Amino acid sequence: MLGGTLEGDPDVLIHGPSKIEEGLPGTISFLANPKYEPYVYTTRASALLVSRDFKPTAPVAATLIRVDQVYEAIGALLNRYGQEAGTGAGVSDLAMVSPEASIDPQASVGPFAVIEAGAVVKAGAVIGASVYLGAKAAVGRNTRLHPGVRIYKDCRIGDDCIIHANAVIGSDGFGFSKDEAGKYQKIAQIGNVIVEDEVEIGANTVIDRAVMGSTIIRRGCKLDNLIQIAHNVEIGANSVIAAQAGIAGSTKLGPGCVVGGQVGIIGHLQVPAGTQIQAQSGVTNPGRNENGQLYGSPAMEYGKYLRSYAAFKNLPDTVKRLKELEKEIKALKDSLES
Amino acid sequence: MLGGTLEGDPDVLIHGPSKIEEGLPGTISFLANPKYEPYVYTTRASALLVSRDFKPTAPVAATLIRVDQVYEAIGALLNRYGQEAGTGAGVSDLAMVSPEASIDPQASVGPFAVIEAGAVVKAGAVIGASVYLGAKAAVGRNTRLHPGVRIYKDCRIGDDCIIHANAVIGSDGFGFSKDEAGKYQKIAQIGNVIVEDEVEIGANTVIDRAVMGSTIIRRGCKLDNLIQIAHNVEIGANSVIAAQAGIAGSTKLGPGCVVGGQVGIIGHLQVPAGTQIQAQSGVTNPGRNENGQLYGSPAMEYGKYLRSYAAFKNLPDTVKRLKELEKEIKALKDSLES
Amino acid sequence: MLGGTLEGDPDVLIHGPSKIEEGLPGTISFLANPKYEPYVYTTRASALLVSRDFKPTAPVAATLIRVDQVYEAIGALLNRYGQEAGTGAGVSDLAMVSPEASIDPQASVGPFAVIEAGAVVKAGAVIGASVYLGAKAAVGRNTRLHPGVRIYKDCRIGDDCIIHANAVIGSDGFGFSKDEAGKYQKIAQIGNVIVEDEVEIGANTVIDRAVMGSTIIRRGCKLDNLIQIAHNVEIGANSVIAAQAGIAGSTKLGPGCVVGGQVGIIGHLQVPAGTQIQAQSGVTNPGRNENGQLYGSPAMEYGKYLRSYAAFKNLPDTVKRLKELEKEIKALKDSLES
Repeated sequence: MLGGTLEGDPDVLIHGPSKIEEGLPGTISFLANPKYEPYVYTTRASALLVSRDFKPTAPVAATLIRVDQVYEAIGALLNRYGQEAGTGAGVSDLAMVSPEASIDPQASVGPFAVIEAGAVVKAGAVIGASVYLGAKAAVGRNTRLHPGVRIYKDCRIGDDCIIHANAVIGSDGFGFSKDEAGKYQKIAQIGNVIVEDEVEIGANTVIDRAVMGSTIIRRGCKLDNLIQIAHNVEIGANSVIAAQAGIAGSTKLGPGCVVGGQVGIIGHLQVPAGTQIQAQSGVTNPGRNENGQLYGSPAMEYGKYLRSYAAFKNLPDTVKRLKELEKEIKALKDSLES
Repeated sequence: MLGGTLEGDPDVLIHGPSKIEEGLPGTISFLANPKYEPYVYTTRASALLVSRDFKPTAPVAATLIRVDQVYEAIGALLNRYGQEAGTGAGVSDLAMVSPEASIDPQASVGPFAVIEAGAVVKAGAVIGASVYLGAKAAVGRNTRLHPGVRIYKDCRIGDDCIIHANAVIGSDGFGFSKDEAGKYQKIAQIGNVIVEDEVEIGANTVIDRAVMGSTIIRRGCKLDNLIQIAHNVEIGANSVIAAQAGIAGSTKLGPGCVVGGQVGIIGHLQVPAGTQIQAQSGVTNPGRNENGQLYGSPAMEYGKYLRSYAAFKNLPDTVKRLKELEKEIKALKDSLES
Repeated sequence: MLGGTLEGDPDVLIHGPSKIEEGLPGTISFLANPKYEPYVYTTRASALLVSRDFKPTAPVAATLIRVDQVYEAIGALLNRYGQEAGTGAGVSDLAMVSPEASIDPQASVGPFAVIEAGAVVKAGAVIGASVYLGAKAAVGRNTRLHPGVRIYKDCRIGDDCIIHANAVIGSDGFGFSKDEAGKYQKIAQIGNVIVEDEVEIGANTVIDRAVMGSTIIRRGCKLDNLIQIAHNVEIGANSVIAAQAGIAGSTKLGPGCVVGGQVGIIGHLQVPAGTQIQAQSGVTNPGRNENGQLYGSPAMEYGKYLRSYAAFKNLPDTVKRLKELEKEIKALKDSLES
């Protein structure tokens, strides 16, 4: 299943996975981060996934399974182990499903879910307890909405997505115009949100609907918890966004971006493909080069920020040196004048 | 309806709005941001809202409607277009409403909503699916609570408000006293939250109840998603707060403030009216002048921060120049001494 | 009850607490923060809690009650006053409880709550409206889950905890491995979350389940709203975390830590016991000393950051002084050469 090479007892029985430092007999663990290597020689786990080129420096009791990519292999293993027992298709008696909604017989709908007229739920989808699906919202094949997810009307979720508890998709974008009296008048937000296939969205994350058109999360994106995606944003395919990041209105990220935790990105930007943004940065100008690395608030090139910040740490000392020089020059001038 | 002047075919038929760069025949679009002007000459939209003083530099196919304030006009238009079909008054058979709650016959209550004893819901209010209204909570006329909103007991929401999905109003403030053993003892939070009229509150935003008295969001405020408002805070009328900002306990904002995304404001401050705070700033001392502009963490005057940050970017170079000077002075002194 | 000494009218009747600046006859207020002292002489509150060593500088109308710890005393008082009327044990007819779940007869379960097979709810626990308890989840004695809380399967909440509305416990950790095509493959998250006794968790906070093993919140911790706790994090006993902070995967905090609002802590760190982290800091290296104080992004020692930041504020002036020196030296050299 993993395409690995076995070294040691081939008959060892495994009933579950474990962490290498806590491994018990009958479990399989792994070595991916070299700093955990000492545990290879002490773990009680019965089997270990290691990379093909790992060279033990002491005897190893466990059976080794050598693979090309340790993280991929452990991922495959955990997925196999962690697969949910089928929840069983069908609509709970305790759900409220509009007679004008279309629920595939192979989908399941949990208790106290509300599904409005015109909504569509495809085969294999799992609509959790207390989920809300607005009018004409759509949920694709094998997509799972955990309890309390709210999908506003007209929004579309693709196939094979996972949306965690209490996430909100399609709330109104933050759009107001200030009138002469200083009062804010709401600008109706009549667009929607489109989430493409194979997207995962974390708990309590919010994605606002577009003022017109669509806010779009492209195929394969992974969004962590408590993220804010504003109206008309577009996130390029296979981008990853860590928790509590926020992206302001109409900004477009190219594919393959990596956004750190608590990052902020202002509105109306084009972020090039493959841009990596360090945690807590504030991006106002992402440049035009792909695969750039950004850091700071406002963000600049990653290495440049590190150098400036290193100098910032020594700044009081630098100011002292400047003061010293001023004195020396004054002394020098005085001595020359006298 | 918009008070505009028409230029071009007055008989053009419009069935909906569009973005200028994606405009299709039969739609109306607008030009507000000058950088979109090129699209005026290429859009296929049938009509365009432009400002009274817009001067085309090439032929325009679309019918032009000239107005005083483009954003206001488009707002009015979108509101007209986006108006919800009436959801119909009445209490869902699937809601749990206490016999001691008072629900106006012109209000609507969605499925799986829970309304506790003593709660009051006024005419025209829309209580969404799975909303929770605690004991003696009140919801004003024409206010809409989207699915999953939680209003704790005793909290009061005014007229014409919108609260988005999964927002929480009235959770306990974060108050503890540390005993001699280093354990934290809870201080009961017995106040409430008052949200005045015409306030909009974003999805997953949290507003804590006061320890005593009230946390207050004044008339006309607009709060984005995922915001934290701590106990006993007061937000002045017509203030705007962007997503993921947080305001610590007992701080009072004057009217007309503008708070950027991911801003933090420490507790027990008085923020003057009209203060504008740049995104990601951390405010510890807002000064005493109205209409100030703040930036940085800790925040200082906006322009001052920009100048310091510009110098920060060049800091490694500045340090190199200092080192160079030190060498030159040493050489100078050596040559004078020899 | 408070162990205080009374000064003034011992027969005064009190029907509730008040803030000192708004105190009305018949209420009790307190003086803890010296900046509120002027109100001692003007408040209309009938009684005042003050510290044993408080010396009035003017006549006081209210009855004084002198106590050792004002905050502790007011806490005890408010708790006594704020105690909920018992909600009454029993399972709502409108809840969906699996016949394979175990609910203590002394527990209460609100309407539209969902409790899955194998879940356990102990005596005195209060499960609010629309709460979700996954399979085999456990809730301890006298713990209260406010409306809309979601506990994923296998997670365990201790005794005497409070979890506020719409918090999510046990959502999947953010773990993916990137394949050769640049696509992210999900790593199943098969661990759980353990919340020990006497923990309070704020509204809309998210705590992810471990990839393997447990994410752990130790006894007595207090977490504010909108916090992100990633997979395999461990928070030491009696730690306090302010709103919107985020802690990345596998980081362990020692006991008694104090984490400010909007702080970020990167993954795989060991934060020593008693560490205090200033709001908005970004911690990448917490050092090894207990009771350290950190500030900045990346964070350094607290006082060091303040000194560097003070120098940062004057940086444009410092650069000007450097430029001045460069000129002077050039002039000096020119005059010596001529």
